[in-house]
Amino acid sequence: MKHHSIIDLIERKRDGESLADDELQWVIAEYTADRIPDYQMSALLMAIFIRGFSSQELAPWTDAMLRSGEVLDLSHIPAVKVDKHSTGGVGDKISIPLAPMVAACGVAVPMMSGRGLGHTGGTLDKLESIPGFRTRLDKAEFVDLVERYGLVLAGQSESMAPADRRIYSLRDSTGTVPSLPLIASSIMSKKLAEGIDGLVLDVKTGLGAFMKDEQSARALAETMVSIGASHGTKVVATLTAMDQPLGREIGNANEIQESLDVLSGGGPEDVKALTYSLGADMLVLGGVAGDREAATTQLQKAVTSGAAMEKFQQIIAAQDGDPAVTEDRSLLPTAPDRYELTAGEPGFITSCNARDIGIAGVRLGAGRERKEDDVDHGVGITLAAKVGDQVDRGDLLAVIQYRDQERLDSMLPLLKRAFAIGDRPHQPELIISHIS
Amino acid sequence: MKHHSIIDLIERKRDGESLADDELQWVIAEYTADRIPDYQMSALLMAIFIRGFSSQELAPWTDAMLRSGEVLDLSHIPAVKVDKHSTGGVGDKISIPLAPMVAACGVAVPMMSGRGLGHTGGTLDKLESIPGFRTRLDKAEFVDLVERYGLVLAGQSESMAPADRRIYSLRDSTGTVPSLPLIASSIMSKKLAEGIDGLVLDVKTGLGAFMKDEQSARALAETMVSIGASHGTKVVATLTAMDQPLGREIGNANEIQESLDVLSGGGPEDVKALTYSLGADMLVLGGVAGDREAATTQLQKAVTSGAAMEKFQQIIAAQDGDPAVTEDRSLLPTAPDRYELTAGEPGFITSCNARDIGIAGVRLGAGRERKEDDVDHGVGITLAAKVGDQVDRGDLLAVIQYRDQERLDSMLPLLKRAFAIGDRPHQPELIISHIS
Repeated sequence: MKHHSIIDLIERKRDGESLADDELQWVIAEYTADRIPDYQMSALLMAIFIRGFSSQELAPWTDAMLRSGEVLDLSHIPAVKVDKHSTGGVGDKISIPLAPMVAACGVAVPMMSGRGLGHTGGTLDKLESIPGFRTRLDKAEFVDLVERYGLVLAGQSESMAPADRRIYSLRDSTGTVPSLPLIASSIMSKKLAEGIDGLVLDVKTGLGAFMKDEQSARALAETMVSIGASHGTKVVATLTAMDQPLGREIGNANEIQESLDVLSGGGPEDVKALTYSLGADMLVLGGVAGDREAATTQLQKAVTSGAAMEKFQQIIAAQDGDPAVTEDRSLLPTAPDRYELTAGEPGFITSCNARDIGIAGVRLGAGRERKEDDVDHGVGITLAAKVGDQVDRGDLLAVIQYRDQERLDSMLPLLKRAFAIGDRPHQPELIISHIS
Repeated sequence: MKHHSIIDLIERKRDGESLADDELQWVIAEYTADRIPDYQMSALLMAIFIRGFSSQELAPWTDAMLRSGEVLDLSHIPAVKVDKHSTGGVGDKISIPLAPMVAACGVAVPMMSGRGLGHTGGTLDKLESIPGFRTRLDKAEFVDLVERYGLVLAGQSESMAPADRRIYSLRDSTGTVPSLPLIASSIMSKKLAEGIDGLVLDVKTGLGAFMKDEQSARALAETMVSIGASHGTKVVATLTAMDQPLGREIGNANEIQESLDVLSGGGPEDVKALTYSLGADMLVLGGVAGDREAATTQLQKAVTSGAAMEKFQQIIAAQDGDPAVTEDRSLLPTAPDRYELTAGEPGFITSCNARDIGIAGVRLGAGRERKEDDVDHGVGITLAAKVGDQVDRGDLLAVIQYRDQERLDSMLPLLKRAFAIGDRPHQPELIISHIS
């Protein structure tokens, strides 16, 4: 690789110039190899934060990050491999019913998920509510499960996209996290290293999303779709509202319960709608359905026939979990005490702030404030009322399963504040638009 | 000191906000105490580079830098203490005749200078052409010389403004050097730590200056004057042209020669004009002259009476140099070989590029490309023709004293390229304006 001067590259990016492909690749390679110190990388990241990346810069930068470590090769598996990624929200358990539904329809789903951090939960934490379920798999095991079941639900390997992990950690301590190109390249480098053929993105916007405004969320979605196109991987995105939590359950075992409802043909309308919509995209990308309508019919059949639930049971067993939880919910952990929050006045629920409820859940113990915190799989919040619902004074708003009085006391004010009651009904839109 | 979050401060500066006095002071104190790592400081410096500082931010930032180390207290010395600083140019030996002239008029000059770096020379290197002259003085010695002679010509102590030294070194490796507020605060923190009552600035603009355009140079001058005002120190600035070298001599011993000419009442017109102009400002700031005209008369008397030369001899002796050089120039080092550059065509000199000539001097050995390089005090360039002069084909343009044929060969193309000959005379302006 041709040698470049890091100071020259910093200066040019500082002055708003575009850097060339080989320059961007050189930076990532040298930084990963410890030949560029953190203090130069952080100056460059700040310049990128403020000046931005052109679309010509984003593809080689992302490509270099994904090639900084191991890249999975699943090409020997005949099924089309499609994953789904959400930018993160509250009550967002969609991956859990979605992955087995899609796999049951013949599209392979090599899913790599994350843990909860901040006000959002994480798919790995939720799955670990299932007694024995193991999300830490080595590469051979991961590939083997995709081959045998067309499905795997695991955490990301440390050996994949190490540049992203290092850059993310540096951004976290240098005020350079909320940058559209840096977020987009971080997500896409990890996903594209999975060796997938297609990717479905759920980009969230609103009070409980990292991208508060729709315009930024749309720009992020478009940027990630274009990175996929540059890389030759089909990517479609859906822009969805994250002003209130998805579904009625927030918390780890709580969300497994709701996921099982969906796999059984039930579950809240919003969770079902989003699961089927993202699933339809995955089946179309996976080449097993000609259009979204046909795909939706296939997904419905997979649920009503029990094939989706059976797929979930298979993968739970394969990952050392107890598949009996799907039939006996009492095997899931639950906290011993119950608190009921009721409405102080009659009216229509006009807001059910996802961010406040997410933080309330973290305080309860369902999530993490710091990476090293443990989560309590048995605590959770069940929403009895959501935006648009009519309530009388004294009607139930939410039920809290808790283990610790202090934690309950610290989260209640936030949970109360999350609900707003007005005199007009309001039905929010969940799926805002498709971007492909 | 109240604790702040460095990430919060980085984010706010990144987004173009102003930081508060105590926040800026905290950053400098914590960085100097090794409690903020380089990678966070460099992200902040890049954000400052791109977003700038408000005038409200510059004063506390500079103040914190100057207080990061030892601050000289010269208040027991009755004379008013005034220093001069130049932003650096080629052939700029002004400090050397200026300081003894001003000291001879009764203003104390506790001068701290730097070494040459890049295409510009440094006063310390030039002074060290004088056999034995010692520029490294400890604090007690420095103060003692100001008391006894009203004059000292030394390097800056390591214990003064250490924050500036560390920040400068970080800027040097992170592409954040040419920032107006960072340059202004760097210069002023060092100068204000000298315990002076007044400061005269020579801010250069043009081909051979760090600030190429007049507008930036003017902004830098105004910024430094306002930092002085905030600090309660009288600062006046002169904006001067640095398109061609000052005077006719470039090189260390060469420039001592020309300085001695000025102290003897001779020397090139431009060097004399600038020395007397800056000197007049120093006498007015120092309170020994009512206006610049009266000050100029005093400076002339100090030269014609021999008092200025005597002051120079005293300080050379006091700093272990051989004062006989002032009467016997052959005691100064000189390189053995001589090369004459002549005009290839007749006409008027229209350009004599200071930057090219400065770099030519460095290649000859008179300056440094890297901090750790040694300088050759005996090599130098004497300009026989400058802008506005008429030459015939074959007339002398410059004489080079050199020691090494390879070095001569590497600098000659640059020196030749520095001269442009046209068909119209052009007299450039040296002193552009006063800013106070």
